[in-house]
Amino acid sequence: MNYQQLVSFIRRQRSFLCVGLDTDLRKVPAHLLNEESPIFTFNRAIIDATAPYCVAYKPNLAFYETYGVKGWQAFEDTVRYIRQHYPSHFIIADAKRGDIGNTSAMYARAFFEDLDVDALTIAPYMGCDSVEPFLGYEGKWVVLLALTSNKGSADFQLTEGTDGMKLFERVLKTSQSWADASQMMYVVGATQGAKFADVRRLVPYHFLLVPGVGAQGGSLQEVCQYGMTDDCGLLVNSSRGIIYADNTPCFAEAAAAAAHALQEEMAVELEKKGL
Amino acid sequence: MNYQQLVSFIRRQRSFLCVGLDTDLRKVPAHLLNEESPIFTFNRAIIDATAPYCVAYKPNLAFYETYGVKGWQAFEDTVRYIRQHYPSHFIIADAKRGDIGNTSAMYARAFFEDLDVDALTIAPYMGCDSVEPFLGYEGKWVVLLALTSNKGSADFQLTEGTDGMKLFERVLKTSQSWADASQMMYVVGATQGAKFADVRRLVPYHFLLVPGVGAQGGSLQEVCQYGMTDDCGLLVNSSRGIIYADNTPCFAEAAAAAAHALQEEMAVELEKKGL
Repeated sequence: MNYQQLVSFIRRQRSFLCVGLDTDLRKVPAHLLNEESPIFTFNRAIIDATAPYCVAYKPNLAFYETYGVKGWQAFEDTVRYIRQHYPSHFIIADAKRGDIGNTSAMYARAFFEDLDVDALTIAPYMGCDSVEPFLGYEGKWVVLLALTSNKGSADFQLTEGTDGMKLFERVLKTSQSWADASQMMYVVGATQGAKFADVRRLVPYHFLLVPGVGAQGGSLQEVCQYGMTDDCGLLVNSSRGIIYADNTPCFAEAAAAAAHALQEEMAVELEKKGL
Repeated sequence: MNYQQLVSFIRRQRSFLCVGLDTDLRKVPAHLLNEESPIFTFNRAIIDATAPYCVAYKPNLAFYETYGVKGWQAFEDTVRYIRQHYPSHFIIADAKRGDIGNTSAMYARAFFEDLDVDALTIAPYMGCDSVEPFLGYEGKWVVLLALTSNKGSADFQLTEGTDGMKLFERVLKTSQSWADASQMMYVVGATQGAKFADVRRLVPYHFLLVPGVGAQGGSLQEVCQYGMTDDCGLLVNSSRGIIYADNTPCFAEAAAAAAHALQEEMAVELEKKGL
């Protein structure tokens, strides 16, 4: 999906919600555990319930890999299900990969060619040649970790260089010479909404993938106030707040309601921007 | 495997060689492609041929994930094969993971409990709480990326902070408060052997996993001169130079010869240190 298609879809859906499919068998409703593939069965129900209210899905690979071959199968089934039934939705494989060039090229092929996801999260530590192999695919995106919302983000991401620039700012700045806003997004954690003003000075146009609204504690209004662009420029993720809204057989209805509530807040923010 | 067991095994084997299982179906001998699982068949032959000359195996996950469910199965089969037939050998899952706490905990469970590998490579960008979940397992190790050997390593790893410390040095220093030399190793690229003197000033005792000897161009003698400790403290990896030494039906014999040649050089270096 290219930049313009993503912006159009956001306008049509009145939403910039990304639903994080962090599916954990210890948290899904007990009645699903007898299914042949409880992870996929759960995901399918969540997807059907939330698709009207979101524009993107973000399965976090860790949750699938922890179940080995079966988990990997459930991940593939989930991606294929979204592709087939909701072809307009954007799919982000939250993999946080990043390796030397030839290895990154293997990942790029796996995720962009074989699985046909739209975007992949990448860790920037290994630099340019670990990211470049992902940039040769038209309509495919790299979502680079910049400022994450966890406590440990302060350990290195906030380290100041001799030029006064923090590491996450350097990542934002340096990586813009690798690809423009049509192929690159950034992960920017939402716990401090005002930080978005600093981020927007460095990346005025790029989409930002914002985790941490909801369970991790960020405020949607603040994120929009400081982070929204004329093309929206935001994908706001919620995982636990939606997919574990309820763990009874009514889990899907509860997920729909939680996603709907966020979508309504988002519609207000889009309206404010004239989008 | 704990620190003392690893040091003893290195002394016994007269080797600190790690064989990188970066198995690529485009490079394995053609006659294997008709096998039911060409990746596992290739790995098994390489492992049987090289086990007398090495102390560790390092499958790089990217090469397996690129083949989806089948690749993941081949990875699991490979780890189980080593565990069963060569229980003294150290297994490093080269995964370069690193995520927020609860997600890292999922990875830790998958790799340390279910698969029973000895170590996992981790990217440091997300800081302490992305690494901590891996440190709760006795005899299991985190191999933290510090200085990688690729061109892009200069983009961020060499950035100097206001205190004159480069980012990779900060990673080495900060992370020592997370775990000691019995649970933590560091990836330090080998293209500039003299860099190891600086590294050893910061981490005098930790094991270093050194990629880039061989195909990536580092010199074994230089690495040992500047990087070896009284307990060896080095695992030197070679991937392509061993596993693709030949692509005829004699590939395993060629791999054995390449590993044996490196082992003999390593025995000389161990001897020099009185190990």
